[in-house]
Amino acid sequence: MGVNGLWLIGLGPGDLQQMTVAALDAARDADHRFLEGYTALLPPTELENMETIVGPWELRMRSAVEEPDDLLSLAQSSKVALLVVGDPLQATTHVDLELRCDELGIPCHIQHGVSITTIVTGAVGLQSYRFGRQCTFAYPYGEYLPTSPLEIILANRERDLHTLALLDLDPSGMGEGQQEPMTPGIAMDVLRKMAQKLDVDIEDWKIVLCSDMGTVDARISVGSPTDISGIKEGRIHCILVPANLHDVEAAALARW
Amino acid sequence: MGVNGLWLIGLGPGDLQQMTVAALDAARDADHRFLEGYTALLPPTELENMETIVGPWELRMRSAVEEPDDLLSLAQSSKVALLVVGDPLQATTHVDLELRCDELGIPCHIQHGVSITTIVTGAVGLQSYRFGRQCTFAYPYGEYLPTSPLEIILANRERDLHTLALLDLDPSGMGEGQQEPMTPGIAMDVLRKMAQKLDVDIEDWKIVLCSDMGTVDARISVGSPTDISGIKEGRIHCILVPANLHDVEAAALARW
Repeated sequence: MGVNGLWLIGLGPGDLQQMTVAALDAARDADHRFLEGYTALLPPTELENMETIVGPWELRMRSAVEEPDDLLSLAQSSKVALLVVGDPLQATTHVDLELRCDELGIPCHIQHGVSITTIVTGAVGLQSYRFGRQCTFAYPYGEYLPTSPLEIILANRERDLHTLALLDLDPSGMGEGQQEPMTPGIAMDVLRKMAQKLDVDIEDWKIVLCSDMGTVDARISVGSPTDISGIKEGRIHCILVPANLHDVEAAALARW
Repeated sequence: MGVNGLWLIGLGPGDLQQMTVAALDAARDADHRFLEGYTALLPPTELENMETIVGPWELRMRSAVEEPDDLLSLAQSSKVALLVVGDPLQATTHVDLELRCDELGIPCHIQHGVSITTIVTGAVGLQSYRFGRQCTFAYPYGEYLPTSPLEIILANRERDLHTLALLDLDPSGMGEGQQEPMTPGIAMDVLRKMAQKLDVDIEDWKIVLCSDMGTVDARISVGSPTDISGIKEGRIHCILVPANLHDVEAAALARW
């Protein structure tokens, strides 16, 4: 028969009912299931549900995915599912896994998932074609604070484009566990520190905070950096920095 | 009881097995189902399957969606599903529907879908955070040919960013039927005409053509404008114009 191979399977944004039918079938049908636990996180309730919905599974952190000899040798003789929150090919590591499979002659299959990128632009009501390059706010390490995320936002604003900023999940930067998704307060601190370094005034900016998107707790807030900084609710967040708003966009944002 | 309201439901990229479990449940549970037929197209085989998988449905073209009084009055007393290829909130029209529901006090629910935007960047192997603003190639009308899509591509390349270019589906521009997805040959003609107007040499560019993504016929091709222009296979296409390639990206593209 030979149904060996690696399946890269998107779980969607959090709620497992947002897996595609094809992804769910492939995940259930696997001999081994590993949850990739470092590029994104599932809500705790969905972690609990996963065995019932999908089947027994084990957690794999960064080193096991970036040095995947064990995964790949297992995939040579059985059907191995690597479960990834969101869409499985949005992270370079997973594209690298595809290439390694190619080299080793191991079949590699992809089951896409709904990605946070689609959800936030749509849910907020900003137009997807008006987004420039996205960026990620990293946790500051001591005195080291790169200003490139704010440079990307400024370059986008200059062209009247919105920016999606993802927020770091891992203060250690190692991807091996103990993740602490960045809070709105820390994100605004990072934004202000970058602004100080680049000598830009961002205090009157309108920031859109998207919290726990794709789960039943999804929530959108709009406000100044000071407003956003004070928000304590929510588990995983990302931020949009809008450019000038078109009419429908302004009406859409006025809802929050 | 009152399960009235409008459900905007993503069908995913083509193959209906790529609907999410939640979207499929919501679509099956609706009293009335309308397929939004002008922002994107389903493959003919999936159009045939839809009644079996989802339930009976009717087609709605642009005017019925942009002037949605009928849809909304139906949604005041029953559960109405508007089925949208890809993700339902990537088009402004659908955000506008949300806002109208808000005004009228009609419950509006969203079921997201896997979007072409996620699929192409991942499947091709280019990094999602290296994409600049996306653009759309429109069919030329007589002598009128806007150069803004190429300007977007050039601005992205200047910053070493990739571009996703969607291709028009509708030579009439009316969204009322008789759609003819733009062929690779026409897309390259449009690109060359824009290049001529802007006096840019694009003949040595490497173009990535993504055809029928998210269906069993998905196919990726890489080549010069002349190579791409000659491709006759495929039904719906989009194009990526890569910037300079990182190592993993170059290895990923070398597969096609």
